[in-house]
Amino acid sequence: MPQIVSETMPGHAVAMLSGPTFAEEVARGLPTAITLASPERALGEALAHALRTPAFRPYWSDDVTGVALGGAIKNVLAIACGIVEGRKLGDNARAAVLTRGFAEMARLGVAMGARLETLAGLAGLGDLTLTCNGPLSRNRALGAAIGQGQRAAGFLAGKASVAEGYHTAPVVQALAARYGVEMPICTAVAALLHDDADVDATIRALLARPLKGEGE
Amino acid sequence: MPQIVSETMPGHAVAMLSGPTFAEEVARGLPTAITLASPERALGEALAHALRTPAFRPYWSDDVTGVALGGAIKNVLAIACGIVEGRKLGDNARAAVLTRGFAEMARLGVAMGARLETLAGLAGLGDLTLTCNGPLSRNRALGAAIGQGQRAAGFLAGKASVAEGYHTAPVVQALAARYGVEMPICTAVAALLHDDADVDATIRALLARPLKGEGE
Repeated sequence: MPQIVSETMPGHAVAMLSGPTFAEEVARGLPTAITLASPERALGEALAHALRTPAFRPYWSDDVTGVALGGAIKNVLAIACGIVEGRKLGDNARAAVLTRGFAEMARLGVAMGARLETLAGLAGLGDLTLTCNGPLSRNRALGAAIGQGQRAAGFLAGKASVAEGYHTAPVVQALAARYGVEMPICTAVAALLHDDADVDATIRALLARPLKGEGE
Repeated sequence: MPQIVSETMPGHAVAMLSGPTFAEEVARGLPTAITLASPERALGEALAHALRTPAFRPYWSDDVTGVALGGAIKNVLAIACGIVEGRKLGDNARAAVLTRGFAEMARLGVAMGARLETLAGLAGLGDLTLTCNGPLSRNRALGAAIGQGQRAAGFLAGKASVAEGYHTAPVVQALAARYGVEMPICTAVAALLHDDADVDATIRALLARPLKGEGE
């Protein structure tokens, strides 16, 4: 997103607001924290102070790449969490998908020049936990349908709303290949969405991967 | 915990299993991932292979400090999430507490010699998301009671079960002071539990802290 803004509006400053922020709760004045990213630190800091309210708390960052990637990849992982729900695999599995999925997000982000602290921040981990654990999001609803045996194309046909992760998953898979990063959960989601892979076989294959160290 | 085991059983190998693992789901054969930590890498790797099943997937680690800290600090943050629920502050606030609380866990852990990847792993972030988002845990129930205006001591009196975070919060606060690490959420929980601080004033004070950069 920031690349496209820079290309189409050259010479203009770029800043992004991203994080776990249901608009209705912000409007009701409930406490909200958010990342405000701009490559120009002074601009980010000034915008953060201009936008803050007693209940709306921005943290500034100059890592627009990390903010953009976190917001995009979390939609793919939300589909994975939905599949866990739809297949009734339990709370342990959902926490494992969030945690190992976050490790995938962090690996790709760092390889693309983002900072780990951004991916572990509000626009990455924060938005991921809201999307995977809050009220059913569009992406998670798509995952739940797949977990219950529907095809993605069938579920999406006739829906006016967009499940961004459907389009993001193959892009993330391509980026993982380009940067030489292992992303087994995102790759599995792409295969389930676009190649009609079998759900149970996909889950068995993920669990059967060779064991490894947590940071490897 | 690993320090105590080493002191009381000198000369014996130490290993720890920790992560988002409701026992009932493990017993039902639902997919579960967990960290298996031992300072002796070969032992950790051998135990991981011995304990794996088609649905139980251990990741080995040599970072016992990170695993022990993650499991302890998450209980304090679960109380914070419970307060958000009890006070009906919304899903944005819960995600913010989890994310900024994780940043506190990571700062203290790294200062104490743990690795960030362990704190972002199953025994840290994984257990944190399960405790904060899964079925109501004992720690979150304590937080919810405080959020609804009860005193901690009154809520806990006569309960047979233990809310570990009640005892951990002041210890975490002391460690933060000793290692010179800012932990505003954990410190606020300790004050609410042990100093009868006012809930609304505490939340206002957290939101009114000076704005800062996300990684600062």
